[in-house]
Amino acid sequence: MPTFKEIAPRLAEQAIELPSWAFGNSGTRFKVFGTPGTPRTPQEKIADAAQVNKYTALSPSVAIHIPWDRVDDYSALRSYSQDLGVELGTVNSNTFQDDEYKYGSLTHTDAAVRQKAIDHHFSCIDVMDATGSRDLKIWLADGTNYPGQGDIRGRQDRLADSLAKIYARIGDEQRLVLEYKFFEPAFYHTDIPDWGTSYAQVSALGDRALVCLDTGHHAPGTNIEFIVMQLLRLGKLGSFDFNSRFYADDDLIVGAADPFQLFRILFEVVRGGGYGANSDVAFMLDQCHNVEDKIPGQIRSVLNVQEMTARALLVDSAALSAAQDAGDVLGANGILMDAFYTDVRADLASWRVSRGIASDPMAAYAASGYQEKIAEDRVGGVQAGWGA
Amino acid sequence: MPTFKEIAPRLAEQAIELPSWAFGNSGTRFKVFGTPGTPRTPQEKIADAAQVNKYTALSPSVAIHIPWDRVDDYSALRSYSQDLGVELGTVNSNTFQDDEYKYGSLTHTDAAVRQKAIDHHFSCIDVMDATGSRDLKIWLADGTNYPGQGDIRGRQDRLADSLAKIYARIGDEQRLVLEYKFFEPAFYHTDIPDWGTSYAQVSALGDRALVCLDTGHHAPGTNIEFIVMQLLRLGKLGSFDFNSRFYADDDLIVGAADPFQLFRILFEVVRGGGYGANSDVAFMLDQCHNVEDKIPGQIRSVLNVQEMTARALLVDSAALSAAQDAGDVLGANGILMDAFYTDVRADLASWRVSRGIASDPMAAYAASGYQEKIAEDRVGGVQAGWGA
Amino acid sequence: MPTFKEIAPRLAEQAIELPSWAFGNSGTRFKVFGTPGTPRTPQEKIADAAQVNKYTALSPSVAIHIPWDRVDDYSALRSYSQDLGVELGTVNSNTFQDDEYKYGSLTHTDAAVRQKAIDHHFSCIDVMDATGSRDLKIWLADGTNYPGQGDIRGRQDRLADSLAKIYARIGDEQRLVLEYKFFEPAFYHTDIPDWGTSYAQVSALGDRALVCLDTGHHAPGTNIEFIVMQLLRLGKLGSFDFNSRFYADDDLIVGAADPFQLFRILFEVVRGGGYGANSDVAFMLDQCHNVEDKIPGQIRSVLNVQEMTARALLVDSAALSAAQDAGDVLGANGILMDAFYTDVRADLASWRVSRGIASDPMAAYAASGYQEKIAEDRVGGVQAGWGA
Amino acid sequence: MPTFKEIAPRLAEQAIELPSWAFGNSGTRFKVFGTPGTPRTPQEKIADAAQVNKYTALSPSVAIHIPWDRVDDYSALRSYSQDLGVELGTVNSNTFQDDEYKYGSLTHTDAAVRQKAIDHHFSCIDVMDATGSRDLKIWLADGTNYPGQGDIRGRQDRLADSLAKIYARIGDEQRLVLEYKFFEPAFYHTDIPDWGTSYAQVSALGDRALVCLDTGHHAPGTNIEFIVMQLLRLGKLGSFDFNSRFYADDDLIVGAADPFQLFRILFEVVRGGGYGANSDVAFMLDQCHNVEDKIPGQIRSVLNVQEMTARALLVDSAALSAAQDAGDVLGANGILMDAFYTDVRADLASWRVSRGIASDPMAAYAASGYQEKIAEDRVGGVQAGWGA
Repeated sequence: MPTFKEIAPRLAEQAIELPSWAFGNSGTRFKVFGTPGTPRTPQEKIADAAQVNKYTALSPSVAIHIPWDRVDDYSALRSYSQDLGVELGTVNSNTFQDDEYKYGSLTHTDAAVRQKAIDHHFSCIDVMDATGSRDLKIWLADGTNYPGQGDIRGRQDRLADSLAKIYARIGDEQRLVLEYKFFEPAFYHTDIPDWGTSYAQVSALGDRALVCLDTGHHAPGTNIEFIVMQLLRLGKLGSFDFNSRFYADDDLIVGAADPFQLFRILFEVVRGGGYGANSDVAFMLDQCHNVEDKIPGQIRSVLNVQEMTARALLVDSAALSAAQDAGDVLGANGILMDAFYTDVRADLASWRVSRGIASDPMAAYAASGYQEKIAEDRVGGVQAGWGA
Repeated sequence: MPTFKEIAPRLAEQAIELPSWAFGNSGTRFKVFGTPGTPRTPQEKIADAAQVNKYTALSPSVAIHIPWDRVDDYSALRSYSQDLGVELGTVNSNTFQDDEYKYGSLTHTDAAVRQKAIDHHFSCIDVMDATGSRDLKIWLADGTNYPGQGDIRGRQDRLADSLAKIYARIGDEQRLVLEYKFFEPAFYHTDIPDWGTSYAQVSALGDRALVCLDTGHHAPGTNIEFIVMQLLRLGKLGSFDFNSRFYADDDLIVGAADPFQLFRILFEVVRGGGYGANSDVAFMLDQCHNVEDKIPGQIRSVLNVQEMTARALLVDSAALSAAQDAGDVLGANGILMDAFYTDVRADLASWRVSRGIASDPMAAYAASGYQEKIAEDRVGGVQAGWGA
Repeated sequence: MPTFKEIAPRLAEQAIELPSWAFGNSGTRFKVFGTPGTPRTPQEKIADAAQVNKYTALSPSVAIHIPWDRVDDYSALRSYSQDLGVELGTVNSNTFQDDEYKYGSLTHTDAAVRQKAIDHHFSCIDVMDATGSRDLKIWLADGTNYPGQGDIRGRQDRLADSLAKIYARIGDEQRLVLEYKFFEPAFYHTDIPDWGTSYAQVSALGDRALVCLDTGHHAPGTNIEFIVMQLLRLGKLGSFDFNSRFYADDDLIVGAADPFQLFRILFEVVRGGGYGANSDVAFMLDQCHNVEDKIPGQIRSVLNVQEMTARALLVDSAALSAAQDAGDVLGANGILMDAFYTDVRADLASWRVSRGIASDPMAAYAASGYQEKIAEDRVGGVQAGWGA
Repeated sequence: MPTFKEIAPRLAEQAIELPSWAFGNSGTRFKVFGTPGTPRTPQEKIADAAQVNKYTALSPSVAIHIPWDRVDDYSALRSYSQDLGVELGTVNSNTFQDDEYKYGSLTHTDAAVRQKAIDHHFSCIDVMDATGSRDLKIWLADGTNYPGQGDIRGRQDRLADSLAKIYARIGDEQRLVLEYKFFEPAFYHTDIPDWGTSYAQVSALGDRALVCLDTGHHAPGTNIEFIVMQLLRLGKLGSFDFNSRFYADDDLIVGAADPFQLFRILFEVVRGGGYGANSDVAFMLDQCHNVEDKIPGQIRSVLNVQEMTARALLVDSAALSAAQDAGDVLGANGILMDAFYTDVRADLASWRVSRGIASDPMAAYAASGYQEKIAEDRVGGVQAGWGA
């Protein structure tokens, strides 16, 4: 097994984009709990995200969501972010909250509604041009609740057509990443329910169209690391939305539900060439902190990814291959588990200090007084959430 | 197989309670779509529910939800309902929307929060006394999102204690029905996740404490009719919340996702003594009409239950038993399927006419002009939903 | 809605291939129950399959499995079958029962094992040449039980290489259909676990490589009709393995677990061009009659497919499209359900008589005395099963 | 967090019973692979089990299965075992492999078949008397494959009656533990599908009837530690069958699929009083080593349980309670995770040496030459498996 020292240089290559909406309120259909200090504006969300990067050095960029992060001047927002030490990253579109989208957006039978949704993506591309963002991420809520409600074939064809129009508009250095999701908010059929559909759709578009894999968007029991491997093999893995789940799209802290699964995913990422400075695969979080504190929740999340990445880097690949080739089932499994069971936390703490940050980011943030300050300062106004 | 004529008398015994909240807006965490004509008040919800009964003669009562249906004078609400031809039914409590309940209600570590939740149930019992309701239905959102967040054993013990206090308050003719749910809104553990837990809790309370089975609240693959059989066998099936699901707690129209499952459930209800005038098992709907029209959605729902009940009544029980005893697998299955595949719709249409209602309730309602009228009349105000 | 008379001509186009192994014994890892009359030879299996066609006129061909149906002279087997009124159909390979395949076959790290598995497929193609079969169906048991046991990426690459070699050997009129399966017999990862993987692999091969969809091979909750639609849209749906399931790959009688799902699948098949004389999509059964009689089990199965096909053909497509375009959720759903709820059994019975077969195939077979005869005749020898 | 030294004394209390059948061949319905050295007799299985205890000091007893471990003289078998340093433990009955049990055993409609199954349990009790076993474990394969095939209520009543007869026969110091299983080998309904059913049945029997929880026998997504907590709370947790799963009842090595889940289960066991010298809860394995070596597979398994037990014992309970009471979600979760992420392997290695066994049991066994010896010695005869 490599030593921590040997893998340490590779850890410096890690960058995990934060979602601006993780700093706003979120919840379930039953209740959205508010908390003192929740941001009211995109600027306040970005300020909070910058705190995560300050204490972890892991999150140099922030994904934004249009219209939730709509501002008058995106160049100004970019400068504001850069002043705080973070870049604006992926631009996420939203075609699920306008009344016109009740029965679909890019798949709608009404050409006018489809055009409205396409135009929204065009305006997102305009935002990208101003923010310097590379990726346009499309997650569609489109689907139906009842058999027969929609023509699922026609919807797929219209989806292809709408995506082609959007793809034609993105710049040469920009990418379209298409997310899939097993279900929710639609409960009978979803128009992009699985990686196969996303793959078929982006393959029809071109090289700069890729798949986004959200770790919470699969059927029960799905082997996610297999999909990671396959998409890397096919050259179509664009980005990750990390989170974790016990049941549905729970959007819990990444690694919280099944740390071993996260390890296995990262192991496939690393050996498939999806990790580090030479890879274009984007790592993002997409989580909801319904009951836990938001900024510490994001810090915990990036640390979880880092810890499991370290473990994944520790796998003794040569020994593993030898055991695999020899049909040594227990031996091969044991080599993988050795890396997983290695406690890298103390080494990571030292490594952080060597890079000029606190050894314990959770404690350092807690001691900083930031949380108390925003709780005190951010009085009045409307707390940010999914509503706007 | 019995003839339709032979089973027709039993159909007259059917009563399916409607949930007042089905007439208000509902949706997902992503969006709640409003619709013209949505009620603004408990009275308007009841008026809409009365329409369902008018066209189907199947839904003589309406369940209410406190605080969503809070009024100053429940006796007046009862009279208002009776004037419209419907009774007020089950009272549903709500301990998931106050900020104090973020970490639990009847299970909370803080005795003051538990008492608040208990007091809420006391006030629900007061409502029941005024409305003449028999059942207090408790569905708890209590649970945790992360391993370690709560002491799951301590929570169970506190739950038992809280329930005992509530049970002690209900009247001799009243019942406490305790619902279970696999997950949501809690994503790691739920305090009453399965029928076993609900059964163990109500068994500790007494004879007037029973289990409520919501057809959408089970793990994937669960054989629901088996649970129906078991609870009837144990004398602990209090009531149903009917709806249907493809994935999670989708709350779709009952029978929409898997009509054969609904048939199997009703078959077990019938032969287990859970159906009809001599049974105390309450049939209720608990659904969300996120994208479809609400009143027609409820009409469709009670008709689905009726159609499947008719099919269940048509099963040739003697022949089925004989085939079962003979080990005739295909024969026994075929006898059950014969009833399921029998198209009872024309017979039911005639039967309706014989009872003085329109043969096609969906068409009759659509032609009545009610929908247009409420869309026109109900302008202004705040449309009812889960928020209040 | 079209009348039965209007759709009747299309019913004559239906052909459902039977699996020879359905007539042998099958079971679970816990027990395989034998039954009197079970075939001992490929010839006896084919004779039984011919009975199904005799009473249903729905199953003019029989799929064979090598080596379970190995004979010295396949041309003679073909003649034998034709004399009984059925053709030999799809040839199914088997690379999961030799000791060498313990850790994989087409994906094995050892080139010699891979070549053995490839050679087996070559010999299957030789069989096809002799039997006149069009399709070579590959279902792979390959996978691993423990994380780390295998290099899942290397296995995928080797799979692609092995498949290319096999594909290169099939004739111009022959096809390779590649089946996917969620899990079993491998319990950590399966090398072809989902339609996306099968699609990616066959797309790399060429036009005569297609996907085989087994209705029991999906994750819980998967919307199978969506995959049917997608594969038809992509021109890659080669064949079906019909069966049904409540939990895993239960291999129950098609339509037994969820008849409505079967209806929805067939509706997508029909409207996607996958049904009838002009379509190349092959309909097959792949079932295990663990506890029920085998020949009646197969008769019941093809009748179930026929009944649901009739219902699917009855859907009023024009009205459905209009309701879909109008956003009439309940109306559109109702149009679909009208077809599903229509009892076509009496019409089908008459139609059978008009085509010269008995109105009730189950009863006619039972009355024929065939079952008693084979139970009496087939004494001694080794009953066929999965073992050989 | 306690130190390892502080918890070390409690580790000495651990005892994990091994299943004799884990040393024989097992597999899937597709194939059972044999391996050199596989035992041919109950004695050889016990000898292999003794090896596991020799290198781990964790498995002082072996569960036997009747008839798979049928011998003429059970007292002699007991002596033989004791000479090897292990006791005979739980006696497992088998009512799923005789032809009479095709449609059920303790639930069968035919009283003669039920009596045969009851008599089998009586003879198991006789075995227990001779072996000194405390527990009679009943896992029933009873169920049906098709809706309507059986009368699920009647079956439940007959089950209760049969169990009562068996329970009446066990001695004052003996226990009946009743296992539940979600599905397999039955695919529509299983007569004891969930903990609720097992709990209701054993509660009706008496104090010495308890529930056996097999960690692989639940619906997807089930929170198993919750059931552990609940059964301990209700005083009805009799024993564990440990193994792990990704999909169905995969019977993989315990801890292999989700080590964090195993940790959570053990944490609930420990704090619920189910662990150690003062507890009557029996820890057993129930696994199938389809592709990996059997003896090392069992060694790996008991080590996994030990490692996760150590981590569970390391949880700082006082700090955890304080964080839970304070509503500190991330803090509480973090305290639990700290224990889980602690690498106890080096401490356990030293602890083993202090107790006179090798620091690395896997390596010590591999170096012992035992595997080579049995491969050489055990030539001829019939390798043990599930068949007999």
